[in-house]
Amino acid sequence: MILIASDHAGYDTKEQLKKFLKENNYEVEDLGTNSKESVDYPDFAIKLANRVIKEKTLGILICGTGIGMSIACNKVKGIRCAKVSDELEAKLCKEHNNANVIALSSRLPQSLCNSIVKIYLETPFSNDERHIRRLDKISKYECQ
Amino acid sequence: MILIASDHAGYDTKEQLKKFLKENNYEVEDLGTNSKESVDYPDFAIKLANRVIKEKTLGILICGTGIGMSIACNKVKGIRCAKVSDELEAKLCKEHNNANVIALSSRLPQSLCNSIVKIYLETPFSNDERHIRRLDKISKYECQ
Repeated sequence: MILIASDHAGYDTKEQLKKFLKENNYEVEDLGTNSKESVDYPDFAIKLANRVIKEKTLGILICGTGIGMSIACNKVKGIRCAKVSDELEAKLCKEHNNANVIALSSRLPQSLCNSIVKIYLETPFSNDERHIRRLDKISKYECQ
Repeated sequence: MILIASDHAGYDTKEQLKKFLKENNYEVEDLGTNSKESVDYPDFAIKLANRVIKEKTLGILICGTGIGMSIACNKVKGIRCAKVSDELEAKLCKEHNNANVIALSSRLPQSLCNSIVKIYLETPFSNDERHIRRLDKISKYECQ
């Protein structure tokens, strides 16, 4: 189950991404927001982050820039949230950083968002020992 | 004093940014790395993050995508590290998110990196109550 959430700015992109994911045979659960009424992005980032950790799954967040979502989401222990801007980053954030959440800007074209999500979900972690060592260092620095 | 650090992939961009900052009359301290020899980005992200918090200043991080640096840096309490890809994000990450660190990809053209850094440093936080409330929520979710 892929989890998805957005603030009001990312609402339209989220709705389109849900449709795209279902068309590509992914199961997706929408954690809100459910309208264009103004909300606070940290509420949605943290809700999704906690579910990603608990269920050992992957998540997608959208706000105006992706930046606020990525800052808030990375505050949760075990989360590696990549703010992704293009298709190469979609690939590398999984291969190198084993990102369990991606944060997208609602300003990106919908076709690019779809492509980023597909590449992110289809790319495996490299399991390269350098990358494992670096991720272990991030974990070590997280609060207990 | 602006703090700057990179991994091996970001070394060249860091050296050019230091030159650009000095030409623009910013004081800058380089926390490494000091060559293109392979290093682990979390070591530099965390070193810079701790100094940014202690000295209440701003920081710039560079790696291949900016993603690993931003994930690691955001693990430090009080850090709001924005992975920035263009000039609009450079402005909005300060206005809306009051980012105290930006993370850049070494794949961006040097002229764009320079421009992003200049806009980021020159833009003030909006002090808008919505944005303050959202940043307070991020702080609340950080570990104690």
